[in-house]
Amino acid sequence: MTQDIRAYIKQVGKAARAASRTIAAAPTGQKSAALQAIGVAVEALRDEIKTANALDMGNASERGIDQPLIDRLLLDDRGIDQMIEGLLQVDALQDPVGEVTDLSYRPSGIQVGKMRVPLGVIAMIYESRPNVTVDAAALSLKSGNACILRGGSEAFYSNQVIAEAISRGLSEAGLPEGCVHWIETTDRDAVGEILKLNDCVDVIVPRGGKSLIERISRETTITVIKHLDGICHAYIDAEAEAQMAVDIAVNSKTEKFAVCNAIETLLVHRDRAEELLPTLAERFQEAGVELRGCERSRGVVPMLEATEADWYEEYLGPILAVKIVDDFAGAVDHINRYGSQHTETIVTSNYQRGREFMAQVDSSSVMINASTQFADGFEYGLGAEVGISTDKIHARGPVGLQGLTSQKYVVFGNGEVRHR
Amino acid sequence: MTQDIRAYIKQVGKAARAASRTIAAAPTGQKSAALQAIGVAVEALRDEIKTANALDMGNASERGIDQPLIDRLLLDDRGIDQMIEGLLQVDALQDPVGEVTDLSYRPSGIQVGKMRVPLGVIAMIYESRPNVTVDAAALSLKSGNACILRGGSEAFYSNQVIAEAISRGLSEAGLPEGCVHWIETTDRDAVGEILKLNDCVDVIVPRGGKSLIERISRETTITVIKHLDGICHAYIDAEAEAQMAVDIAVNSKTEKFAVCNAIETLLVHRDRAEELLPTLAERFQEAGVELRGCERSRGVVPMLEATEADWYEEYLGPILAVKIVDDFAGAVDHINRYGSQHTETIVTSNYQRGREFMAQVDSSSVMINASTQFADGFEYGLGAEVGISTDKIHARGPVGLQGLTSQKYVVFGNGEVRHR
Repeated sequence: MTQDIRAYIKQVGKAARAASRTIAAAPTGQKSAALQAIGVAVEALRDEIKTANALDMGNASERGIDQPLIDRLLLDDRGIDQMIEGLLQVDALQDPVGEVTDLSYRPSGIQVGKMRVPLGVIAMIYESRPNVTVDAAALSLKSGNACILRGGSEAFYSNQVIAEAISRGLSEAGLPEGCVHWIETTDRDAVGEILKLNDCVDVIVPRGGKSLIERISRETTITVIKHLDGICHAYIDAEAEAQMAVDIAVNSKTEKFAVCNAIETLLVHRDRAEELLPTLAERFQEAGVELRGCERSRGVVPMLEATEADWYEEYLGPILAVKIVDDFAGAVDHINRYGSQHTETIVTSNYQRGREFMAQVDSSSVMINASTQFADGFEYGLGAEVGISTDKIHARGPVGLQGLTSQKYVVFGNGEVRHR
Repeated sequence: MTQDIRAYIKQVGKAARAASRTIAAAPTGQKSAALQAIGVAVEALRDEIKTANALDMGNASERGIDQPLIDRLLLDDRGIDQMIEGLLQVDALQDPVGEVTDLSYRPSGIQVGKMRVPLGVIAMIYESRPNVTVDAAALSLKSGNACILRGGSEAFYSNQVIAEAISRGLSEAGLPEGCVHWIETTDRDAVGEILKLNDCVDVIVPRGGKSLIERISRETTITVIKHLDGICHAYIDAEAEAQMAVDIAVNSKTEKFAVCNAIETLLVHRDRAEELLPTLAERFQEAGVELRGCERSRGVVPMLEATEADWYEEYLGPILAVKIVDDFAGAVDHINRYGSQHTETIVTSNYQRGREFMAQVDSSSVMINASTQFADGFEYGLGAEVGISTDKIHARGPVGLQGLTSQKYVVFGNGEVRHR
């Protein structure tokens, strides 16, 4: 059986590599036709998708899977509408492939620039949400990449019908079905085999829990665009405007709790603690947020005690750690020590302090006077998002179509030869 | 002993990570002072470098090391002059750190852009040439990165004195010596331990033979900026200008033989073979190049027979494989099948053919009517080069200072909060 899986995944890898050449050269219009045709096919298969999804939901309940996972599994009419809407949104984005930049003449006479090109083959490994199957396929197609999609076993039947819709759309547009390979097995060995496809896969994008992402990073030498923790901070500087400071701190935590760009720790300059902490405590209480403070914070407002472990914690829920710092340097030290290099904001009206924060904080998004909850691909204007990378290599922060491409050098000459 | 090496390398990793924060925030002027002070120190230690190098050369001869390797080991007065000159050239480049691009307002009111930042810690693993020690240190410093340098054992004594010069320069400029860590042991286990420093090293840059690079890529999950084969092609199209075609083909092969951007295979459209092959054969003979041709080529001009293996060969010397192709598609197929995605050029006066070549050839440098030997960092205007990447992830083609940096998002707000 394992031998069969190995052979199957190897064959998928080769077929994806072959199809990647076709999709890389596909004109914008053909990719657009495919995205629209997939939308039409999803609509045509709406009832089948709902039936398959009901089967997945039933199996999940029987197996006693957690309620949050089951919630993410649900594909109702609204979810299917959103899948179709997502396809049209990706279709509307500018085609990144072939964009030439930085074209300039060199002393030798040649003109050198960079052309944006697809990476080749992208493998996406994800859990529960079946809508990722369509999202990932759409982003791969638009960026000229072939893809291998390995969804969670709990969404198997939903994904099977969605994969059928994708095949129909591709074939409608005259593109090889091999541009999108959905892995047709729930065998757990399949992931391990995908991680070994060094010759056929250019990048792996895992979407799921931290343990999945850690396992993938550990077990493959293929590049992984990964998103681990989001331990984000807001720092209220000595010279912050009071109202702005409170609004940004509250919004950075409460606009949504279970998102990676929500703050987990609030840092307050000691000169502003007595003035601002009472108001902040009131606002957070209204929003149902439990505060856990350092000793000094608890001297100003009663709250639970924060232990060392709290500074490392990604609550992803209505809990916020609070710390009073002596100065700007103390805030930066705390962030660089405990943070996960995801997103941090400073509230300040001091020019120099803002510049220093931008330069000294080593996170994928660094903000001045704005809510950390803005850190996503849509708010940044990327149009769509594969995920948020907490790595520094290749792509950092929200990853859009550009993160699924590379740049090659292009040289336009008039017969120049080199003489050293 | 292995235990000692492990502890030593771990401590180096931690120290480099700590120093990386200082060098990342160092102003341009301080980095400039360090580069210049290192140059002064190299000059002051000129005699010591030559003495140490003589020791290395002697040891290498005794151990019966290959002559090309011994040649690369030599550091004479000219070599030392070039090291100092190289430092000044890197100093003269624009500081890439802190550059902000693509800054634009979003509908929410926030202004979003990207800021170029150092990667953190770079590990360079290289063979023989001791001048790499200074080059690598200079590029790392200028790009705001700390580095770990592991040179070849055959250059140990030369590198030891050069590392001393680097330490002096750093300390002169008030930078921590930990910004540049030269590995003070010839123990072979050191490389293996460096490959495990996932928490302390952001990218590994190997410079050396293919076996070294393959080993490193296989054994680490840290990102490797690697350069494997350079199997480059020139294709003479049906509509090429005769003189230009011959000049570019000859220069692409003969300007230097032992370089990765020299062509190894020449492809000729069948309609031009009878006209151009005799002239080409004559020019290549004058340059001492042995031709190995496909059957059809040998029907036009007498030459040795090319076997299937020749199309995969990186000769790095005065041998050239020659193939006649039926059409443009045949040329592209050959390149995509046998090439190493390094550098290819087409000679054509046809507009559409040129555009198709640019779009369909998947190499790090794709050229029209120019010699492949232009593919390097200096000719492309990067100023200096860490190497040429044949990968697609992070950096592709000649890698300059930019390849040693990343981009983070920066957000400038006026108190904006998000409402979904």
